[in-house]
Amino acid sequence: MTELHLRQPSAPDARDAVRTLRPSQIREVANAGLGIENVLPFWFGESDRVTPQFIRDAARAALDDGATFYTHNLGIAPLREALAGYVSTLHGATSAGHVAVTSAGVNALMLAAQLVVGAGDRVVAVTPLWPNLVEIPKILGAHVDTVALDYGAHGWTLDLERLLASLTPDTKLLMINSPNNPTGWVMTREQQRAVLEHCRRHGIWIVADEVYERLYYADNTNGARTAPSFLDLATRDERVICVNSFSKAWLMTGWRLGWIVAPAALMDDLGKLVEYNTSCAPSFVQQAGVAAIGQGEAFTRQLVADLHASRDHLVRALSSIAGVDVKAPAGAMYLFFSLPGATQSLELCKALVREAGLGLAPGSAFGPEGEGFVRWCYACDTARLDAGVERLRRYLAEPGRR
Amino acid sequence: MTELHLRQPSAPDARDAVRTLRPSQIREVANAGLGIENVLPFWFGESDRVTPQFIRDAARAALDDGATFYTHNLGIAPLREALAGYVSTLHGATSAGHVAVTSAGVNALMLAAQLVVGAGDRVVAVTPLWPNLVEIPKILGAHVDTVALDYGAHGWTLDLERLLASLTPDTKLLMINSPNNPTGWVMTREQQRAVLEHCRRHGIWIVADEVYERLYYADNTNGARTAPSFLDLATRDERVICVNSFSKAWLMTGWRLGWIVAPAALMDDLGKLVEYNTSCAPSFVQQAGVAAIGQGEAFTRQLVADLHASRDHLVRALSSIAGVDVKAPAGAMYLFFSLPGATQSLELCKALVREAGLGLAPGSAFGPEGEGFVRWCYACDTARLDAGVERLRRYLAEPGRR
Repeated sequence: MTELHLRQPSAPDARDAVRTLRPSQIREVANAGLGIENVLPFWFGESDRVTPQFIRDAARAALDDGATFYTHNLGIAPLREALAGYVSTLHGATSAGHVAVTSAGVNALMLAAQLVVGAGDRVVAVTPLWPNLVEIPKILGAHVDTVALDYGAHGWTLDLERLLASLTPDTKLLMINSPNNPTGWVMTREQQRAVLEHCRRHGIWIVADEVYERLYYADNTNGARTAPSFLDLATRDERVICVNSFSKAWLMTGWRLGWIVAPAALMDDLGKLVEYNTSCAPSFVQQAGVAAIGQGEAFTRQLVADLHASRDHLVRALSSIAGVDVKAPAGAMYLFFSLPGATQSLELCKALVREAGLGLAPGSAFGPEGEGFVRWCYACDTARLDAGVERLRRYLAEPGRR
Repeated sequence: MTELHLRQPSAPDARDAVRTLRPSQIREVANAGLGIENVLPFWFGESDRVTPQFIRDAARAALDDGATFYTHNLGIAPLREALAGYVSTLHGATSAGHVAVTSAGVNALMLAAQLVVGAGDRVVAVTPLWPNLVEIPKILGAHVDTVALDYGAHGWTLDLERLLASLTPDTKLLMINSPNNPTGWVMTREQQRAVLEHCRRHGIWIVADEVYERLYYADNTNGARTAPSFLDLATRDERVICVNSFSKAWLMTGWRLGWIVAPAALMDDLGKLVEYNTSCAPSFVQQAGVAAIGQGEAFTRQLVADLHASRDHLVRALSSIAGVDVKAPAGAMYLFFSLPGATQSLELCKALVREAGLGLAPGSAFGPEGEGFVRWCYACDTARLDAGVERLRRYLAEPGRR
């Protein structure tokens, strides 16, 4: 046995590409609040409401029925059919052969990235952005360049020419998230058209993270309109992969269920990648997804109306605090705003949770372009928002805060 | 709009590394049986029994309780604690800080591979082997060399010296699955010790896929013994990552729940990878896992006893067919045996499903070393096994089959 200990190799470490992935600054803030009682958390991208009963009932019924076996890699046929119908209604004819079920929206992004990028490939992403889109290609050895949104009198806007200039012919993939987490920015139809034309010209793939497409408030009083989507412009068989999720529009964050719309010619390869990543989403979870699509439209429209009201309520309340600069974005479920002290947003957010019991996400968690801002998820009732605003107001009113 | 159509780039394709991944030959056989009535399927690695009621009840209760939110990347604390206790009982002291919950066993393998291998790295795998271990590193750009088991009078055996010789100092990772799918081969304690010593000497990582560890029949009449595990020999903080799953020992294939035991120093990086792959396993699925670990021991032991009996029953029945060469392996839930016509196992299995209504997996699905064999999953009752054996007997009795 002594031979076992003759050598002392260095301590085990993950490879460099993994060690240099960004850890979550949101979790760092949450950790700073451990032990603090009665924190009001607005830091995660998640409603405080449980999944609707009819969806939970569908999962229970599937469990009773014994839906506890493997499914097809690309998902159960009823869910693929339901999703094809749903996408067709929103964005034009789409067959089940263009749809794959995934183990969460983020899993869909990982699969999409695995499909098209490998070591050394160049990827472009528009930022600020939730970290996952920027970090996923790095796990595969790709290089990610970012194009920053601008912040001004109209909130967050895209300099289209700058984005197009960055999409050089050697670029493999553009990853774009609209409506955007964290800013709420929504890409316009005209911008999408110009980007699609440009990417077609150069054979550049587009992975569009459209999980917030239903959470869209411009000219959308009844929740029936979706944000502009690449699916509205692209054919179903070109280099466009759209990623979506049940998490936001049906309050199913903890279910880890998403989907991909992609060229039918890619489905065999996508099925292999699903096999080698998770093999399939849980069987009864997929059955719950069928219920969400089939019976959930009224729920989603009411949810969007509620979020719209929460957004406006929070913008009004925050605007009443001196030094806070906040604008109402057209989509998603966040306000991404500046306030005194936010130029060091991570330190500010740690102080807010420790000293005020207020849980916000630091802007720097979403890339260097996010520094100077904080993210507030408003997917909760207005009383809770009001309580949070009061904590912020009191914190900022203390001497030396401005 | 005409500009949109000026150029016709080539049709969209996945990247080469993905297009060259192996598709499932089992699915190819299953597709050959589409439209055939009353096929008896023994091709998938899955019991025909539904998940035990107490586990389904736990998921239902969690859904009722509103467990529909995101969880910690590494899993809910009660499940990590339960798994730490379970692993400690089987393999010696293991803390929750060494345990991560994953979205299936295969997802655990993908995460483990992402932790340690990137483009250009050399990986060694022992074959025949279910395809996932060999294909996963290729998605990450790694190169996989295989070392074949030998088949002889004692069934499948490992030439240890040949494996050690293949583990050159430039090797990054050894992936090994014991008890093995498809052969049922079980690595001996002495072989594990020699491999561990060798890998320590050269700083080579070991990823051990031990999802069949409970399905072990040697000197194990009460189902209490597990197969030899690298966890029995390794410290918890060296280059050994053990992967496990709820699929086999608790009949939870369709739940997609697994776990990893790994050095505590890797857990922060592993948490990042979980975030960027699936973020977490579904919340109520994890609660069901707590019930499986906490209340499932008697169930698992009975299951192992049943499988043991099914194995022996099927070996006896198949041995009565002339030309069939079958041996009882020490682990897993498959017989991997040779029979007339199996030198073209894919064609044979297609013919068996079309002409005899018998669904077996072709040996070539598990690598070229598997050619000449077929895999039969015996995780079902003996009446069904008998019906399948009769179909095989009748098929082989037809003129010209030998």
